[in-house]
Amino acid sequence: MIAQAILDPIIDRALAEDLGGGDLTSELTVDADTRARAVAVARTDLIACGGFVFARVFERIDPSVRVVLHEAEGTRVESGRELWSVQGAARSLLAGERTALNFAQRMSGVATHARAYVDALPRGSSTIVTDTRKTTPGLRVLERYAVRTGGAHSHRDNLGSAVLIKDNHIVAAGDIRKAVERARKGAPHTSRIEVEVENLDELDVALEAKADIILLDNFALDELREAVRRASGRALLEASGGITLESIAKVAATGVQVISVGALTHSAPAADIALDLDLIS
Amino acid sequence: MIAQAILDPIIDRALAEDLGGGDLTSELTVDADTRARAVAVARTDLIACGGFVFARVFERIDPSVRVVLHEAEGTRVESGRELWSVQGAARSLLAGERTALNFAQRMSGVATHARAYVDALPRGSSTIVTDTRKTTPGLRVLERYAVRTGGAHSHRDNLGSAVLIKDNHIVAAGDIRKAVERARKGAPHTSRIEVEVENLDELDVALEAKADIILLDNFALDELREAVRRASGRALLEASGGITLESIAKVAATGVQVISVGALTHSAPAADIALDLDLIS
Amino acid sequence: MIAQAILDPIIDRALAEDLGGGDLTSELTVDADTRARAVAVARTDLIACGGFVFARVFERIDPSVRVVLHEAEGTRVESGRELWSVQGAARSLLAGERTALNFAQRMSGVATHARAYVDALPRGSSTIVTDTRKTTPGLRVLERYAVRTGGAHSHRDNLGSAVLIKDNHIVAAGDIRKAVERARKGAPHTSRIEVEVENLDELDVALEAKADIILLDNFALDELREAVRRASGRALLEASGGITLESIAKVAATGVQVISVGALTHSAPAADIALDLDLIS
Amino acid sequence: MIAQAILDPIIDRALAEDLGGGDLTSELTVDADTRARAVAVARTDLIACGGFVFARVFERIDPSVRVVLHEAEGTRVESGRELWSVQGAARSLLAGERTALNFAQRMSGVATHARAYVDALPRGSSTIVTDTRKTTPGLRVLERYAVRTGGAHSHRDNLGSAVLIKDNHIVAAGDIRKAVERARKGAPHTSRIEVEVENLDELDVALEAKADIILLDNFALDELREAVRRASGRALLEASGGITLESIAKVAATGVQVISVGALTHSAPAADIALDLDLIS
Amino acid sequence: MIAQAILDPIIDRALAEDLGGGDLTSELTVDADTRARAVAVARTDLIACGGFVFARVFERIDPSVRVVLHEAEGTRVESGRELWSVQGAARSLLAGERTALNFAQRMSGVATHARAYVDALPRGSSTIVTDTRKTTPGLRVLERYAVRTGGAHSHRDNLGSAVLIKDNHIVAAGDIRKAVERARKGAPHTSRIEVEVENLDELDVALEAKADIILLDNFALDELREAVRRASGRALLEASGGITLESIAKVAATGVQVISVGALTHSAPAADIALDLDLIS
Amino acid sequence: MIAQAILDPIIDRALAEDLGGGDLTSELTVDADTRARAVAVARTDLIACGGFVFARVFERIDPSVRVVLHEAEGTRVESGRELWSVQGAARSLLAGERTALNFAQRMSGVATHARAYVDALPRGSSTIVTDTRKTTPGLRVLERYAVRTGGAHSHRDNLGSAVLIKDNHIVAAGDIRKAVERARKGAPHTSRIEVEVENLDELDVALEAKADIILLDNFALDELREAVRRASGRALLEASGGITLESIAKVAATGVQVISVGALTHSAPAADIALDLDLIS
Repeated sequence: MIAQAILDPIIDRALAEDLGGGDLTSELTVDADTRARAVAVARTDLIACGGFVFARVFERIDPSVRVVLHEAEGTRVESGRELWSVQGAARSLLAGERTALNFAQRMSGVATHARAYVDALPRGSSTIVTDTRKTTPGLRVLERYAVRTGGAHSHRDNLGSAVLIKDNHIVAAGDIRKAVERARKGAPHTSRIEVEVENLDELDVALEAKADIILLDNFALDELREAVRRASGRALLEASGGITLESIAKVAATGVQVISVGALTHSAPAADIALDLDLIS
Repeated sequence: MIAQAILDPIIDRALAEDLGGGDLTSELTVDADTRARAVAVARTDLIACGGFVFARVFERIDPSVRVVLHEAEGTRVESGRELWSVQGAARSLLAGERTALNFAQRMSGVATHARAYVDALPRGSSTIVTDTRKTTPGLRVLERYAVRTGGAHSHRDNLGSAVLIKDNHIVAAGDIRKAVERARKGAPHTSRIEVEVENLDELDVALEAKADIILLDNFALDELREAVRRASGRALLEASGGITLESIAKVAATGVQVISVGALTHSAPAADIALDLDLIS
Repeated sequence: MIAQAILDPIIDRALAEDLGGGDLTSELTVDADTRARAVAVARTDLIACGGFVFARVFERIDPSVRVVLHEAEGTRVESGRELWSVQGAARSLLAGERTALNFAQRMSGVATHARAYVDALPRGSSTIVTDTRKTTPGLRVLERYAVRTGGAHSHRDNLGSAVLIKDNHIVAAGDIRKAVERARKGAPHTSRIEVEVENLDELDVALEAKADIILLDNFALDELREAVRRASGRALLEASGGITLESIAKVAATGVQVISVGALTHSAPAADIALDLDLIS
Repeated sequence: MIAQAILDPIIDRALAEDLGGGDLTSELTVDADTRARAVAVARTDLIACGGFVFARVFERIDPSVRVVLHEAEGTRVESGRELWSVQGAARSLLAGERTALNFAQRMSGVATHARAYVDALPRGSSTIVTDTRKTTPGLRVLERYAVRTGGAHSHRDNLGSAVLIKDNHIVAAGDIRKAVERARKGAPHTSRIEVEVENLDELDVALEAKADIILLDNFALDELREAVRRASGRALLEASGGITLESIAKVAATGVQVISVGALTHSAPAADIALDLDLIS
Repeated sequence: MIAQAILDPIIDRALAEDLGGGDLTSELTVDADTRARAVAVARTDLIACGGFVFARVFERIDPSVRVVLHEAEGTRVESGRELWSVQGAARSLLAGERTALNFAQRMSGVATHARAYVDALPRGSSTIVTDTRKTTPGLRVLERYAVRTGGAHSHRDNLGSAVLIKDNHIVAAGDIRKAVERARKGAPHTSRIEVEVENLDELDVALEAKADIILLDNFALDELREAVRRASGRALLEASGGITLESIAKVAATGVQVISVGALTHSAPAADIALDLDLIS
Repeated sequence: MIAQAILDPIIDRALAEDLGGGDLTSELTVDADTRARAVAVARTDLIACGGFVFARVFERIDPSVRVVLHEAEGTRVESGRELWSVQGAARSLLAGERTALNFAQRMSGVATHARAYVDALPRGSSTIVTDTRKTTPGLRVLERYAVRTGGAHSHRDNLGSAVLIKDNHIVAAGDIRKAVERARKGAPHTSRIEVEVENLDELDVALEAKADIILLDNFALDELREAVRRASGRALLEASGGITLESIAKVAATGVQVISVGALTHSAPAADIALDLDLIS
């Protein structure tokens, strides 16, 4: 899912944080030849996400462990179900427990949060929900993956992927129209040109400048409806700013094509997952 | 506060994620010689945390920027106040905006969350609130710092810092008493020996084994009170497991010395901080 | 131009290759307190590119050197002109000479090559020339920058930036139409959908599938003209495949909007730049 | 051939550039369980080089792929022949295609270029052709390997491997004789002492100073002949400076023992290699 | 024993130092298909330590080698005995020989040195011997492991693991009592509070301040005895400062509970281990 | 002396080991605005080495510190003298103390050890003393520098720098003569060809094969004298194997040109250096 060359440095850094000085407790209290099986169990209903990261954490501690992924990525799992299990030296399982869960709880938390937003859309809506660049530093590739695993969409990956002219760019550029035109002229032809607007007047300017996508920042519902009317298909409209599980259905009903939600990644609560260990005789 | 040698790799990785392919939008829409000042502004009441990280993000993009930290770390700041400002090439400020805010929002979020827990303790309580190892992979040093900035305490740093015998260790070791004794025999003498217990019977075993600290996992309030009575100072008692802003005062009132709260780091909502940019003529 | 956090690891790795075991010759033959000035001089006509990399190489050896950039990035410079100069301990200049030149010769070489392609377009042509992902492993950000410095455009940065369905994707997906539709449904809304076609029949399929951009792979000139006629503005057309300085004008004259040229980066000859050193008394 | 510990960081950085944000196209258009075989095919006559790098690129994406190297390193391969093949999940093959080819095209390009120089030597000549330190930053170990695979020789690896006193060292040291003597006195005894000279007078000085190797920079053919006569075996002579495929035979015929050619690495055109993918049922 | 994610970067850096430019000698003198078996043999009596590092060095060069560990970690091995063996391509064994031995000689050297200190304690003594933070930069995790393998104990891992107030802290804090109190108030509850004292008067202050551990720096034997008398169990006493194999028994006999010895790591002589290679037909 | 790009990663890794979890003690016991000056003082007679590393450790913690190097590298310093001093925030000095000293004690230890060997040579001897590749993994560049600072010489840097055919190579190659010839044919012309021999018969073979350098492994004094006689200048002779401060003068008197001593780096005792801290008012 994510190339091992991309995943390994992320995992290795996390293990360095926790295991750089060894694992005092396991080495002192558990014999080297004690073998065990540990199962990750959902403690709430959740969307399973991050099984391959869970697996790789233990493999990067001890390549001789064996992992089984019982639930596929993106599956809705009820509280109490086994997600993934790992078998091997008890010390290796204990050493990786917290790091593996820290990843899995975050990834499943984001996927579950994303699914909740998607499920809150009106039935049959063609509006898509996307993440933003408000991701945890160092974990963007995992969090964007979790967003998609939850059923939402990814926005652009980073500052080099596509053009999005935000409020501060407009301040620095001096003018929406000029900014859009300069961007169109120089941007990779693979990138659409998106511009953020604060009100309907700016929307008109952006439409005239032929922006491909217009981000409507903190528009009220009636403003969103008017924006949809004015754009009438000439540009994709993206609503953003404080949209919640409670408000998303109404926002989608205005007809905007995209709703971006920073909270998908910056404020998703961790999913509750426990690791239950049993000895193998 | 945090050594530059420790901080730089964390920041550089975050910038690599976002800026590895350059910043299309700023390069296309803003002139290279446009200069600006950008101010980080609190959008909610919060505990300021991460100013030095905010500063270093911009310096690692462009060493010629100048940063001013208006609010000291740990200060309670009201919504609308200026936290920190940075001045330099507009392109450099725009390139760093999102990464700087991602760090600052997370760190201030954790600090604010920690402060809330500390403030929820009964007035005059000597109970301390601590974090756990449920930190974001790759950001532990920043999150533990944020916890302390918020007024809470740090638990052990990692698996090599101190001994904490948890439920799964006991399964693998076979026996609380044996685990405690083996740990005491081999652990660094600088480390206290902590053991997790599930009920009052196990507490008695742990007390007999002369554990220095006993972690009471998911004890009800009356069990906590009974535990305090039984321990009567022979061991530090740490309560843990699902303790919330609502319940913490009652837990503290039982007399436990330590309350550890995973949510301080794994589920702190991001603090809302905006970056307002103005041109400098 | 390129964030220091992005640039430093690239430079440090290059220095590790060359200086990891020290610089025997300079340490043995030059006194530590000998000071000098070294000037990078163009030995052929070229487009100046990479001055800031040249500077940073010496700074990463010895922060006390001082660099002056005489020629701005993208300037057309005649053979014999001074590009950039650096002053400091002679040992530091000698230690960095080869690495600094290796970067500068490659970057100026790519910029010069790109400029040649752009200059070969018919006067007044609106066709743009772009690079491809055929960049030197580890140096993509520098080479894409050099392409733009030379006056050409960047194609998508990487596999996560935008969708480009190539011949092998179509084999694996089974069908152009299905591939385009699946891509449109799931891609970030900031990305246009581009598909590669091998002939005019596939072009028709791609147009019907409403691809935003169609890459015409190795089309003959009359096929390109026919493709432009059939597309008639419904999709951007990108010509690619073995286009040379000799053929580019004719390709552009067919009316395609984009010409992508792998040779911009994979086969640009190094620009000839020498470093002349003089002692400072 | 090259230790995995040396190779992996080079490959991982290249994959980070291209795959750091995932592979949008493959994930969107190809099913996870589609399996395929991809074959690297020579599109021109070339010297096969880099098969083990090609293999490792795919393994670092997905350890479950299987690679077969049909042509041994250094083999002369005709256009149309299969070089190497890889089998596994189609998504993994598509994700690695460009990076694997970027390495292989560069390495085979350098090997092919080196072979052309070696083949251009007079039949039976004992003169050797070597590379220089004008290698691509970050890829030196691969390019030097490719030079040797093509049949040419490696010059010193880096500034810490051996002593080569160049023009700028002489400026800084003040004097050829002094520089050679200081070098001989302090250099590792495993290193010969080489010095660059600009004309026959300097050659005489270098011979008197008992340099082991004398680099004749940009000497005309008759000067080279005279240099060989004067040296008469007292020092190895190395000719350098703008030597081409056209001129190398004449240079070798002068009797110099070594010809070093920066163009082997800094200006080798990429070899043309394609990747053809077929589904496996 | 040590997680692979922790071990690999240490090994890879060591290999980069020695193999970054390839292995000239093996490539030139040994055929690629020559296979061999190499055995690490003790050349003095020693405590075996680092077998898994020895193994991993060769695997990081060439994953196809096979290693057998004949002697378990911590075993006392007589001169002449085989410790570990590795089998595979002769070139791979030769390329790894020096690096593998450099690690193994250092680790076995530290373990052997530690065992000597432990063996020098009076029979039946409950005093423990510990290392300090005077470890080789970059190798702490290996050296602390070697200390424990030799039968001694680890002191705190690093500055974030536990509190140790040393002489310079007291200068900066102004006062032993204040320093201890501030530390107790803020330190993780898992950490004991240790303070260094220079004489018996300071010891009294430290005891009154209720330090958990008191480091007696360079105390004479009679001072140590008096310290034990005064502490009478109220604090753990740690003796440190120039304690040798000759003096350790007398120091232990004073009744201190802990003796810390920097020389365990900073001045352990390398154990003499050779690698004997034989061809496999 | 050593390029910052080479030095910084070594220092940063050492600081990560010790400071990755912060510095509990300094943060708890010392106020943030306390300023101090710390002086490194020799506690034994030593050769000063590593002042620039000492400086850089503190700068990488806190760029605002100021360092003064009182004693030049390579100076013989008497016990009690101030070597280097650093001034700044007391917390920053305390955080760096141990790491800075660990480097400085090791580097000065190696330099002092090397000087002792050089001083033990007969007066006026032209024999040089060199290190070997038996360096501490990860610190080779620092230790080789320290060897030279002490007045000894560096042997080849690594496996890619020069050819040294050792006993195990000969086993694998089958034959001294063949190994030497193959090496000469393929080695960089900058490298001399060295071969290890075990006895006088092998010496004769090596001389006939025209090896440039012959390493005499564990030869008795009379064998060394005979070797010198037989070689009579046709090859450089290097004695190695267990040569001590006691025996080196006699070995040198046999007339060998080079004596290599692994103990220079693998068994140099750490130099005793203390850091004395005083407050600045």
